[in-house]
Formats: sequence, structure tokens, C-alpha cells
Amino acid sequence: MNHRLATTCSALVLPLLGTTTGAAMADSLPMRMNSNITEQQVLNAQQGWCNGLLAISKAYATGGFAAAEITASRILDQAYGYQYGAVAFKPTLTQHPQTFRGTKAGALAYFVGGNPSYPNDKGFAIKPWQKCAIRNQVIQLHGDLAITMGNVDLIDSSGKLTTVDKTWAFLREPDGEVRIVLHHSSLPFTAK
Amino acid sequence: MNHRLATTCSALVLPLLGTTTGAAMADSLPMRMNSNITEQQVLNAQQGWCNGLLAISKAYATGGFAAAEITASRILDQAYGYQYGAVAFKPTLTQHPQTFRGTKAGALAYFVGGNPSYPNDKGFAIKPWQKCAIRNQVIQLHGDLAITMGNVDLIDSSGKLTTVDKTWAFLREPDGEVRIVLHHSSLPFTAK
Amino acid sequence: MNHRLATTCSALVLPLLGTTTGAAMADSLPMRMNSNITEQQVLNAQQGWCNGLLAISKAYATGGFAAAEITASRILDQAYGYQYGAVAFKPTLTQHPQTFRGTKAGALAYFVGGNPSYPNDKGFAIKPWQKCAIRNQVIQLHGDLAITMGNVDLIDSSGKLTTVDKTWAFLREPDGEVRIVLHHSSLPFTAK
Amino acid sequence: MNHRLATTCSALVLPLLGTTTGAAMADSLPMRMNSNITEQQVLNAQQGWCNGLLAISKAYATGGFAAAEITASRILDQAYGYQYGAVAFKPTLTQHPQTFRGTKAGALAYFVGGNPSYPNDKGFAIKPWQKCAIRNQVIQLHGDLAITMGNVDLIDSSGKLTTVDKTWAFLREPDGEVRIVLHHSSLPFTAK
Repeated sequence: MNHRLATTCSALVLPLLGTTTGAAMADSLPMRMNSNITEQQVLNAQQGWCNGLLAISKAYATGGFAAAEITASRILDQAYGYQYGAVAFKPTLTQHPQTFRGTKAGALAYFVGGNPSYPNDKGFAIKPWQKCAIRNQVIQLHGDLAITMGNVDLIDSSGKLTTVDKTWAFLREPDGEVRIVLHHSSLPFTAK
Repeated sequence: MNHRLATTCSALVLPLLGTTTGAAMADSLPMRMNSNITEQQVLNAQQGWCNGLLAISKAYATGGFAAAEITASRILDQAYGYQYGAVAFKPTLTQHPQTFRGTKAGALAYFVGGNPSYPNDKGFAIKPWQKCAIRNQVIQLHGDLAITMGNVDLIDSSGKLTTVDKTWAFLREPDGEVRIVLHHSSLPFTAK
Repeated sequence: MNHRLATTCSALVLPLLGTTTGAAMADSLPMRMNSNITEQQVLNAQQGWCNGLLAISKAYATGGFAAAEITASRILDQAYGYQYGAVAFKPTLTQHPQTFRGTKAGALAYFVGGNPSYPNDKGFAIKPWQKCAIRNQVIQLHGDLAITMGNVDLIDSSGKLTTVDKTWAFLREPDGEVRIVLHHSSLPFTAK
Repeated sequence: MNHRLATTCSALVLPLLGTTTGAAMADSLPMRMNSNITEQQVLNAQQGWCNGLLAISKAYATGGFAAAEITASRILDQAYGYQYGAVAFKPTLTQHPQTFRGTKAGALAYFVGGNPSYPNDKGFAIKPWQKCAIRNQVIQLHGDLAITMGNVDLIDSSGKLTTVDKTWAFLREPDGEVRIVLHHSSLPFTAK
């Protein structure tokens, strides 16, 4: 990038002006600002989601429900964008009329259970998850928002593999923070 | 909007300058450009998706596979953003290893079937659909990109209702065209 | 907005389903997230720039250079996006080879002067400014970024009016903070 | 990019699953869509602006006013975003009350003159320009919108150099077209 611009400089500007001033063509020009999310930030945020899931699971195993809930609440604040408004969240195992979890309370209930307002939630994240890996099929970059679609593979302590179809959208703040604003997870379709 | 700006004008500028020139405060100022997608454009595009599905179904009923394929191809060009790159498309009824349809060919096979490269595709859009309605749970606006999540209700000629969980992202071009770049559809989870 | 969606609901969904459940059509649906900057946020940020200029001027009048510099530094952190990278800043009265102020240090020198690295800077903001008003000619909204172009009218303690041609771009963070990332100011052209 | 993702694949997914299927890890995954403007597209669009200016100048030299006007109109359609709404355009040599050219008609008058509604316009682009070069000080990337600030150097047939301070914003359509939506040009400030 710098190389190309340096070339542009010598090829176009210097012959035109007929003089060279080192100061005017400092290596650091042009200076830059870039508010786009990068693919690496997306991959890091996905890995962060896996790490968060495993952290909640481990907190439950070692500290019980209270520890899991504290961990999950912290992870939701960090990894999801509920502070921006309604997150589009369709978890894997939710049902009508509580399919969608546009609020943090609904997301927390899904991850750790124990909320009488969400009686069907058993706590997805407190299962004994051991491994979590992501296989991306599509990555889209749209400014500070990225969309990913693919599979997530989860393995529990008994070695059982669960694969889900997963769509995320991540929003990057100008300060570099990246948060999930869309999460649609579903079990693979199986023909009967 | 104009009212507020007119107020700003009289309150701040005119007292400051001490003179009033009608020409300088023309009703048409400030002039505007707005490249954001609107909620109405999103609702129209969703309705367009329903209309497209019903159009493919009707084309099949009246003209058979060939007519349905022509209609579907045209609708895909119009309503989906495959010309921009990979669309993140997880249809309702697809299975590994052809779950995701990042290309137009894969989307077309799903909608009308008949493509030996996608042997499990029966043609979702050629079923005898009669009605299609959308219930939004979340609408997000991010510049020229909008995300929606909710349900789509489909009724076929026998009166059978099929409800799916549906996520879309729509991208608006500066010229006003709106196309789907993300589509994740899944059957509702049912506890066994 | 709610009215239109309620209409959509009753017109499309309820006849389709043939039943009505109040809970399913809660007034609060769809829930929303909107990361776009609004015209009101733009107008507020412009007014904030004027207020900041007058605050630096007043700090200088009452507390001298040290007070002005502290005030200007705080305003730059708050109102400009130097923490995101290089701000595109061409102040009204700067000259080659220090025309552009991509760093906070260069902006601070322009506003208050007193920096030997910028010997031509006399301190634009420490002049005895009394009034500051903005007349927008164009406002553009592009997601979380807005562009404005127009005039700014400044009046000093002697009653002298200075008008400049002014372009700004404002970037909104998801948390609602709005900062200047582009500022091009120039004296009106006068034919000789 | 592909290399990194391939590494991610082998490091995370394959050990987890314990099996390898070539088909599932095709080299082409993930597929991508990217609606961001690139720095190269920005540099090309800048060069396109220079080329357009020289083309109008040449059309005038060889074909007179009519040829220049046709050329300028075509270049404005191609290079500026007037079809999207009001372009924020402050040309170098315009004066109150016609400083800003939010419409194509105003821009065309500035470039070629000859419009009685803009009596001060002499036709900036029909001067005998021979060379045009751009020196960027700041480049910002914000999704499909890019901002540049720096200098443009123009040399006419007599060898006279004119340097201006120049800010542009470019908007990229999803189909790859890039157009100017902001253009603020000003003569360098000179202390009296």
C-alpha cells in the first residue's frame, strides 16, 4: 500500500512539480482512518463467542448456577450489542411464543436458564461443552458491519457432536469493539 | 424537518446577521442526499419476496417447470444480490453438504428443483402456495443495510400453514434498488 | 411508524392466520436497532462545535493561554475523532507545508497557538469570538456518517463578521457519541 | 487471506471432528461479498477526475464550447453522484450567493461557463490544462464511502502551476461504480 503510493508520488507529482522536498513526501503520507471491520476482527469475535460459551459451561461446572449467570451476563455485555437496541437473536432451541430474544434478559435466560419468565429454557450454555469450532461458508464485509454464515460444531463431555447452522452479524465501533447484533442458529433440517 | 431547520435559521442566523434575505433562506435549504435504506423500503422488499414466491408457484401451475425456472431466475436477479458476490443463503429445507447456497445456481435449484447437481432439491417455490405473510420481530437499520428477523407464514392450496423463522439482510444501492444479501430460514425447533 | 406496521399486521397477517392473539401483536413489535446518525444529531454536533469555539475563546479571556489550552484539548477529545485515526482537517488559516492537521497536536496548535512546531499558528479560537452560527447548504446522511456543507458566521467582540465556507463529516458511534472526522474550512473566494 | 483461513480450518476444525473431507474444506471457502470501497478504487476515481478535467479542456480546444459542454455533462454523470441527490460541491472559484453547486446544472456551469444563470462562471475546465496530479494527505475508508484530503496540482499550457486544497468523498455502488458526493476545493490561504 505504502509502496504503491510512494510510486504514485514519484511518477506523478515530482515530475510535474520539477522539485523534490523530502518533507513534503514523508513516508507516512497519506495518513489514514479506517472504520471498517476486518475479516480478522470477525474471526476473533467468532472465536470469542466460542470461548464465551465454554467459559459459561466451565463456570457452571465449578461454581454452579450463580457463577454461570454472572459469567454469562458479563459475556453478553461484552459480545452482544444489546446496549445499542434490539439484537436479532434466534437461538437454536427456543420455541413460540418466545422464539426471539431481542433483549438481554431473554438471551441470558437462554444461556443459563433459571428464569421463570422463560420456563422452557434449560440453559444451553451450562451443558458440559468441551469444544467449539466454526466453519464459515460465507463472510460479507459491509463497512463496520460483517455477516457470517456457516456451521458451528460443539462437542460435549461425552464426546457427542452437535452441529448447528449459524448466521451472525457483527458491528464494529470506531474504538475497535466488536459486538453481535444478529444471531440466527438452527438445527440442520432432516428430511423425514 | 423543514420546520425545525426554518426555526434554527430564524433563531440563530438572522439575529446574528441582523438582516434578512429571502433568497438566502430559501425553503429548499439545506439540500439533501440520503443513502440509507428506509423501513418502508425494507417492508416493500419483504413483500416483494412473498410476491416473488407466489409468482414462481403460479408460473409452475400454469406453465410447468420451464415457466417456473424462467420466473425464478428473473426474480433471483431482481431480489437477491448474487451480482455483488456470495449471498449468505440458508434455505429452510436444505441439507449437508449442500446446506448453503452462495451462488445463484444453488438458489435457483432450491426454488424450482430439476438440477441434477442438487439431487435433494424438490423445488420449494413450485409448491401450490396461496398466501405469504411476514411478521417482523426485529428490524435493524445500518446505513444502506437492513436486517430483519421474524416469521413468515405460508399457506398452500390445501390450507396448510407452514411457519418458518426467517432472517434477512437487505442492501440498498444508491439508485434505490434493494436486494437480499442474507437469508437464513429454519423450521421452528420442537422439543422431542 | 407503529401505525403503519399495525396496519400491515391487521391487513396481512391476521386474515391469513384467521385468529388474533393480542400477545403476538404487541404494540412493541417489531423491536428496533438503528445505528444511523440522525439530522438532529448532526445539528447538535454543529452547535457543539460553535459552543466549543466560544468556550475556548472565553477560557482565554478569563484564564489566559493555559486555560484555553486545557479547554481546547478537552473539546478536541470530545468533538473530533483523532482517537480513530487521522482526521481530515484543513483549517481556515493554515499554510503550506502545515496546511493539514491530521493529528490532535496540529489541531490544538491551530486553535490556541503557542506551539513552536507550528510557528505560524496564532490561535484561531482565542480570538474574542462572541457569536457563531451555521447555515447548511447540503446535508447528506450515509449510515453512521453525515456530511454537511455550508457557511459558518463568526462575530467578534468588535462586531466584525467573518464568514467561512465549511465542510464537515461527522461519525456516530453505536453508543451515540458523534465526532468530526473531516473539517475543511476556507475563506470565500474573491475575484481580484 | 485464504492461507489464514485454511490454517484456521486445519487447526480448529479438523482436529475437533477427527475426520477430513476434502469436499467440505474446499479452497474456495468461505465465499465472500465485500461492499466496501477500496483505496485503489479511490485512487482510480481521483485519477478519473484529473482525466475528466483534461478531457473537457481538450474538447474545448478542439471543438469549442459545444464539445466541451457535451463532454462535461457526460463526465458529471459518470463521476459525480447528482443522480443520488444533492452533491456537496464547493468549487475553487465560486462566490456568494452561488458558492455551492448542489445540482448538476450548477456544476456544469462552473466547469464550462456559458450559463446566464451563473454569470460569474468563466468555465474552469475549459482553461488550457495540461497536467493534473493529486497528493493525498489523508485517506479515510468508511464502508462504501471514502474521504480524501490533500492537494491537486494543475499546470496550464503556459507552464503556470495552480495548487488547490481539495477534499473529496467518493461513494461506491454495490456494482462497483464510484462517484463523487462531496467536493470542497479552495485556494491556499495566504497571510496578508
